[in-house]
Amino acid sequence: MTKIIDFQTDPSKYRHWRITYDGPVAELFMDVDENGGLFDGYQLKLNSYDLGVDIELADVVQRMRFEHPEVKVVVMKSAKDKVFCAGANIRMLGGATHAHKVNFCKFTNETRNTFEAAEADSGQKYIAAVKGSCAGGGYELALACNHIMLTDDSSSAVALPEVPLLAVLPGTGGLTRVTDKRKVRRDRADIFCSIEEGVRGKRAKDWRLVDEVIPNSKFDAAVAERAQEFAAASSKADATGITLGPIDRTFSDDGVTYSLVEVEIDRKGRKATITLKGPDADAPADIAALHALGDKSYLLRLGRELDDAILHLRNNEKEIGLLVFKSAGDPEAVLAEEALLLANDGDWLANEILQYWKRILKRVDMTSRSMVALVEHGSCFAGVLAELLWAVDRGYMMEDEFEGDNRPLATITLSEGNFGRYPMGNDLTRLQTRFLGEPEAVEALEARKGEAMEAEAADEAGLITEMFDDIDWEDEIRIFMEERASFSPDAMTGMEANLRFAGPETMETRIFGRLTAWQNWIFQRPNAVGADGALQRYGTGVRGDYNMERV
Amino acid sequence: MTKIIDFQTDPSKYRHWRITYDGPVAELFMDVDENGGLFDGYQLKLNSYDLGVDIELADVVQRMRFEHPEVKVVVMKSAKDKVFCAGANIRMLGGATHAHKVNFCKFTNETRNTFEAAEADSGQKYIAAVKGSCAGGGYELALACNHIMLTDDSSSAVALPEVPLLAVLPGTGGLTRVTDKRKVRRDRADIFCSIEEGVRGKRAKDWRLVDEVIPNSKFDAAVAERAQEFAAASSKADATGITLGPIDRTFSDDGVTYSLVEVEIDRKGRKATITLKGPDADAPADIAALHALGDKSYLLRLGRELDDAILHLRNNEKEIGLLVFKSAGDPEAVLAEEALLLANDGDWLANEILQYWKRILKRVDMTSRSMVALVEHGSCFAGVLAELLWAVDRGYMMEDEFEGDNRPLATITLSEGNFGRYPMGNDLTRLQTRFLGEPEAVEALEARKGEAMEAEAADEAGLITEMFDDIDWEDEIRIFMEERASFSPDAMTGMEANLRFAGPETMETRIFGRLTAWQNWIFQRPNAVGADGALQRYGTGVRGDYNMERV
Repeated sequence: MTKIIDFQTDPSKYRHWRITYDGPVAELFMDVDENGGLFDGYQLKLNSYDLGVDIELADVVQRMRFEHPEVKVVVMKSAKDKVFCAGANIRMLGGATHAHKVNFCKFTNETRNTFEAAEADSGQKYIAAVKGSCAGGGYELALACNHIMLTDDSSSAVALPEVPLLAVLPGTGGLTRVTDKRKVRRDRADIFCSIEEGVRGKRAKDWRLVDEVIPNSKFDAAVAERAQEFAAASSKADATGITLGPIDRTFSDDGVTYSLVEVEIDRKGRKATITLKGPDADAPADIAALHALGDKSYLLRLGRELDDAILHLRNNEKEIGLLVFKSAGDPEAVLAEEALLLANDGDWLANEILQYWKRILKRVDMTSRSMVALVEHGSCFAGVLAELLWAVDRGYMMEDEFEGDNRPLATITLSEGNFGRYPMGNDLTRLQTRFLGEPEAVEALEARKGEAMEAEAADEAGLITEMFDDIDWEDEIRIFMEERASFSPDAMTGMEANLRFAGPETMETRIFGRLTAWQNWIFQRPNAVGADGALQRYGTGVRGDYNMERV
Repeated sequence: MTKIIDFQTDPSKYRHWRITYDGPVAELFMDVDENGGLFDGYQLKLNSYDLGVDIELADVVQRMRFEHPEVKVVVMKSAKDKVFCAGANIRMLGGATHAHKVNFCKFTNETRNTFEAAEADSGQKYIAAVKGSCAGGGYELALACNHIMLTDDSSSAVALPEVPLLAVLPGTGGLTRVTDKRKVRRDRADIFCSIEEGVRGKRAKDWRLVDEVIPNSKFDAAVAERAQEFAAASSKADATGITLGPIDRTFSDDGVTYSLVEVEIDRKGRKATITLKGPDADAPADIAALHALGDKSYLLRLGRELDDAILHLRNNEKEIGLLVFKSAGDPEAVLAEEALLLANDGDWLANEILQYWKRILKRVDMTSRSMVALVEHGSCFAGVLAELLWAVDRGYMMEDEFEGDNRPLATITLSEGNFGRYPMGNDLTRLQTRFLGEPEAVEALEARKGEAMEAEAADEAGLITEMFDDIDWEDEIRIFMEERASFSPDAMTGMEANLRFAGPETMETRIFGRLTAWQNWIFQRPNAVGADGALQRYGTGVRGDYNMERV
């Protein structure tokens, strides 16, 4: 599985999903092409999915927000008979590397979180209309919807058969959503997760596994009715979307060039430098001008490019252990772009761009690579871009003038955006998380919005890790990078997963923390992945040969 | 490492700790005997520890509460020169099985949680007085204390060198306490956890890693002064302790017999039945009578025996995947024992017994085995013992009369104790956690305290998973047990770790959830535990040979 995975797609290329639009209601049909697997060696039977299917779903979900703001309710259905979705493809999992399994789960989790949050973020509600068997990752898709409707016939059931069948966990949020979103009683959850055949009918409703159970004969009508009801109750304003065109990028051996993002890979040093460019034109004069720009507006374009770059590095450049974030441009111009969105946050497009940045920054938080920001002269870490300084593990800043460097002195400027617009998965802002031990520091910073802070001020305010002058900068940065590159990548992954998310846990952080970590552990255990483990033996009729020791 | 590990000890057997008592202040000296390792193959140099050292510490901590209620402050010190504690012994870890590593970390975590909570639970405060190097598990010991004092000399430092040195995590709460208790700024935490030499002097204080830094010449006096200060400020009443004598137990090939607990092991069925007996005498007439009974009082004796049984099964019976809890006795007698404690919770001994049950029940929650409770006729699941019904994964109850069974009908009786006295690690009661989706059910149950609920009532109230009558009981229980025994133990571990702790996370649940799960993952990765991994190569001067792929 060394083929390059491309996270860009568009509706003309979909092989696995179909959508019909009818005013405020869209119907999203899962119709997986058995022969459309991302890799060879397996068939995507029974609406089972692999990363390719999920890349399309992520694209659907993103376009639903930007291209179809008129949609208030998305009804997720299966286009196949007798099966809603059989979950992640087992043969794909059986053949995948550990790293691919982990990255596959992470991306699918991010996609589910995105459509789950669409209701709160922009009034777009997802209904799962379940007919037929809905198992494993299939039920996890439904669990991430805001409302689950199940038809009442002898074959339609929801199930999480991973544990008995495959000796792995329902790892795409399943266990966490059962306990924390659906709030299923624990002993019932224990039974539910132990039986291959799942739960159907009245019991599924009584156990809180679904919201409604409806006789088969009335199911389609009830779903349509519920969709109209939710649409009518939505406060989402009517609007006309913009088109998300292809993003502008060129791959080379050692990087990717986008219109506003440059990725340079240093394979020997095992690091990638991601440079974000400031605006190349004045900010739109008003919100109408922003709409007119469509997908060309600065923050939307930058965000899509950065998002793609992160996904590319995560999945296709596994030996690149350090991501170095830089920026170059006019901080005032960045602030002007953000200010227009903040001042017009009642506008659907402004809101969607802000919400998208929230997601992109979470994607950065969740990226299992060491990350550092270098605040150089001529950089533009202001407002939303300054969030990157606290999404990364460390931030270093240039102090005073550097010989032969005519760029404006490095500064950091905070905006209103840094105080609540881009919360982390733990529901705190990055500044609140950073200053958990001294909350008064956040208040003090809020009073300094708009101030272009040079290194000494930024350091004193705790916004950066360290500042270095011309004499020390190069050596100090080099030493840090060499040191980082020498550590065990696994230890870094574990350490960063623990240090990055201080403070409260939410369902989201629990999915990426507790659930994912246990799943990753199981994905290393012979009972699951060994030659005689459950994943390899799946379909042979012979159960995995388990070591019966508990640890 | 197949030798039987005994969790019982007493001061006459200590090899690694010394204590001096001086009124309200006790000094606890770590003085590890290099040659006193629990297993062969390593020396416990530099106050490094293995499970044997920690079993003694757990004993100290427990006796401090019961035998020395007059102690208001415990000062933890090293009896060695130049080293406070070097943490867990690396050669021991390098040679240990995966299961031993995991169980070792779990037990040490439970011990640290216990002394950390002593201040809140009974006004007994722990000070870490750190002279010399305090690294890894050594700093984690200090982190679990309520106050950390560090001497300011050139060699005294606190450090978490696991990641750079050993490619594993500081897994005994270290990372979590750095972020969530000490609230160290994340980039500083990142630096701190990346440098072998640690942080000393003023920086250790500025970075919130310690509470005080004191010149070496004034250190001992300052520690003594602080101890007296804390003791004077404590509201803990003066009292005289009781003696914890040896517990009454007999091991056989297939079980353990205690005075009030019977453990029967069915190796073929991979299960152990733990039967708790009701009181064998009337409850003490008053609190003075309770004191007079000392360690012979019912709930204290039962608790110590159950605690030992759980630890024995966890560590010495790894293939026993299912624990079956039963009870036999008079529910009213159990309630009377608990009622005496609840009515006298201002009494130090009553309080300590209640607090101890809180810890025992948490130990059950955290036990990585499938657990079931069988509420049979003649059982006494009442009050504190009823907590076990919701600590386990499922509870089955006998319904109506069984042929030839003359015991009183199975009942469950709730007491005041079930509504707040024994919170789980998530800070909710087991009933609150169970009924997260229907909090009104908890209120309804509170109104029914004291009612002996038979199967139908208990089932309707949601207190049990299912009830079975004489015709079905045996088959249903057998089928459940056989099914459970057939699953992958690893998948069970991961599933139970996710299903048992719904609702909010606390520092405690984060340590056992997020941190432990990532550590267990790393404990499976070749970079740490492989033949060329960091743990095997430790001490050779050659760094581990790492696979540089990120996952």
